[in-house]
Amino acid sequence: MKDNLKKYLVEAIGTFFLVMTVICCSYSAQGLAPLAIAGVLIAIVYAGGHISGGHYNPAVSIAACIRGALPLKQFIPYAVAQCLGGIIAVWIFYLMIGQIQVFRPSDFQVVPLLTAEILFTFALCYVVLQTATVKETNGNSYFGFAIGITVLAGAVAVGGTFCAGAFNPAVALSVGMVNAVSWKLAGLTILANIIGGILAALAFKLTYAEVQE
Amino acid sequence: MKDNLKKYLVEAIGTFFLVMTVICCSYSAQGLAPLAIAGVLIAIVYAGGHISGGHYNPAVSIAACIRGALPLKQFIPYAVAQCLGGIIAVWIFYLMIGQIQVFRPSDFQVVPLLTAEILFTFALCYVVLQTATVKETNGNSYFGFAIGITVLAGAVAVGGTFCAGAFNPAVALSVGMVNAVSWKLAGLTILANIIGGILAALAFKLTYAEVQE
Amino acid sequence: MKDNLKKYLVEAIGTFFLVMTVICCSYSAQGLAPLAIAGVLIAIVYAGGHISGGHYNPAVSIAACIRGALPLKQFIPYAVAQCLGGIIAVWIFYLMIGQIQVFRPSDFQVVPLLTAEILFTFALCYVVLQTATVKETNGNSYFGFAIGITVLAGAVAVGGTFCAGAFNPAVALSVGMVNAVSWKLAGLTILANIIGGILAALAFKLTYAEVQE
Amino acid sequence: MKDNLKKYLVEAIGTFFLVMTVICCSYSAQGLAPLAIAGVLIAIVYAGGHISGGHYNPAVSIAACIRGALPLKQFIPYAVAQCLGGIIAVWIFYLMIGQIQVFRPSDFQVVPLLTAEILFTFALCYVVLQTATVKETNGNSYFGFAIGITVLAGAVAVGGTFCAGAFNPAVALSVGMVNAVSWKLAGLTILANIIGGILAALAFKLTYAEVQE
Repeated sequence: MKDNLKKYLVEAIGTFFLVMTVICCSYSAQGLAPLAIAGVLIAIVYAGGHISGGHYNPAVSIAACIRGALPLKQFIPYAVAQCLGGIIAVWIFYLMIGQIQVFRPSDFQVVPLLTAEILFTFALCYVVLQTATVKETNGNSYFGFAIGITVLAGAVAVGGTFCAGAFNPAVALSVGMVNAVSWKLAGLTILANIIGGILAALAFKLTYAEVQE
Repeated sequence: MKDNLKKYLVEAIGTFFLVMTVICCSYSAQGLAPLAIAGVLIAIVYAGGHISGGHYNPAVSIAACIRGALPLKQFIPYAVAQCLGGIIAVWIFYLMIGQIQVFRPSDFQVVPLLTAEILFTFALCYVVLQTATVKETNGNSYFGFAIGITVLAGAVAVGGTFCAGAFNPAVALSVGMVNAVSWKLAGLTILANIIGGILAALAFKLTYAEVQE
Repeated sequence: MKDNLKKYLVEAIGTFFLVMTVICCSYSAQGLAPLAIAGVLIAIVYAGGHISGGHYNPAVSIAACIRGALPLKQFIPYAVAQCLGGIIAVWIFYLMIGQIQVFRPSDFQVVPLLTAEILFTFALCYVVLQTATVKETNGNSYFGFAIGITVLAGAVAVGGTFCAGAFNPAVALSVGMVNAVSWKLAGLTILANIIGGILAALAFKLTYAEVQE
Repeated sequence: MKDNLKKYLVEAIGTFFLVMTVICCSYSAQGLAPLAIAGVLIAIVYAGGHISGGHYNPAVSIAACIRGALPLKQFIPYAVAQCLGGIIAVWIFYLMIGQIQVFRPSDFQVVPLLTAEILFTFALCYVVLQTATVKETNGNSYFGFAIGITVLAGAVAVGGTFCAGAFNPAVALSVGMVNAVSWKLAGLTILANIIGGILAALAFKLTYAEVQE
């Protein structure tokens, strides 16, 4: 397989498992859901980092493009692979449980939702750039853990209270597809995630000394 | 002791503790069970990785054979050592509590059980191959964590809801022995785990560039 | 941006997310709050360690000054940046939820509060100095995890029972601002945190062989 | 301070925090207690490993002596320092809460208690020897995590159900002092912990190829 196709396949496989974990945990209303979601993210970041960078998140891919860690022309295929992985997870989930409408949408206020999704997507993308794309931390063994644990923190701190806790447009899309939030809120979440990723890349450029432009 | 015997002993000791933890947590219906099971797996993977590879799971050993990380003739002794470790754990557990029939079988639907066990065994074996058998991630300190946390994610996301959450034929065997699921479901679980391991090895070959065939 | 400004900005961003996580978890009374708080601390320590040292805590900065890991003249700007980050988090939180008085103060006894805050701030600063400032552990991948997990241990063991579980003057200040404890108890907490940091630096000098004086 | 005194002080400080966390979590009946106890153990192992080896547990020190990782004449001072650290924690705890008899003893059956404490002390010491004393895993960043997470697994799987979940004679002593179990059960626990440590050292010698005798 061509190298780029390998990358897209890795991004699709990882996002598939991230979204499958999110949906299954929502379905069974697991109290440990934030640990499971953060856990699968940690696992797939470590499993795919050496092939595709291990984004599984269009907001992370945007931030990586702005920072110069991903070629701009790779953004669209990465985001498509990620969203496809999520959509396939939704489809397999429906095949697995044999019915189509199992979730009732949670409701959230617009201002807290936007604020919370922007803030923790910012945190997530800032952590990705600082731990996985700079030479001072090159070769470390903690990048996947730092990335996943940020999602745990956000999911517990604001997820379910102020927002869906997606911090990831591909997850927000799937959460909308399974009716766990309305399409309007899913759309606002996607917007907030993209804004968070862009702001994180700018904050990275302000704080990191040797960014090559 | 001969080197191969050391490997089998390490696989048996590790699987013993994995199964003992699974059974004790089931017995006392611990809410933190997924953390304990993932935790003991992390510990034994790190403790035995340098001797036997730290599989403790026939599905992982199959995937490792297909990938070329374990000689094919080692599969049978590995799987036997793993299952023996699990069986001894069941036996010690019954000695410890002094009675024989303490579990009532959970019931699961066949299609969700097969789907969920295949998917998360796939995730587990894919993570093992990508983090513990490729040169790009050689020498990392995260492989055991990534492997264990995948089991945490699966146990929370689908374990107890759609399936027993074994992701491991040796665990499924023990779960059947203690009557936590029927023998029919234990058998289906073992089948699903083996399929998941084989599919993961194929996905690894598709995504990883330098597989030696 | 000048290098020192970069450091102050990193300290402010990190403390912002630490305090935001603390306040949001208090607001929604999350049972997994200690994991979220420890988690975000782990993430920001790994994200900022290579720039500012990743303190996010005036008690840690004091301990680092006494140990010789931070120039004394940097203490004031570090502490100001940390407190500013916390104050901005409180401000954004109020903007997000649209009201000003959402917490009712917890009450604690003075002696247990002082003891518990001193002890676990001591533990935290001792772990920071031993894992992040000595040559024997230089280049390790675990410093952020060890630091964050100490806060988890303290938050579970004594937080909410004997004290607020701040272990950090910038967090104590924010906890006072949002009315989660009275100003008197917030002040005592800050005092205890500073004492804990100083004692930890002395214990470090007693136990570590090659401290340069 | 002389080098040996530094080691004993590090062992005492670490065991102090381990026991303080155990007692405080028992006092407030925290559901997340296993995470806090494992967490503080992870932190102190990483904080003191480069000075004293980071045992904090007479059973680990016995196993280390048998394996040849600790000189035999160091066993008594190590165990004394560890027990002293635990005793001081009990004393400070009573000063902190201002009363002397706050625990009611849990009751356990003798056979399950002995079995469970032997098994998980075995697991703990086996993990210590394999991850922290062999050249194949030298320089890894996971030893403290593997060690702590083993205690988490044991605490969840058997602690409170079959035994106190000490896996450590210094902890068992403190648990007896605060009346959380009877002195008879504390004594049996200490015995089981020592047996577990010795058996683990023998299992290590069977499985590890290059033990120098």
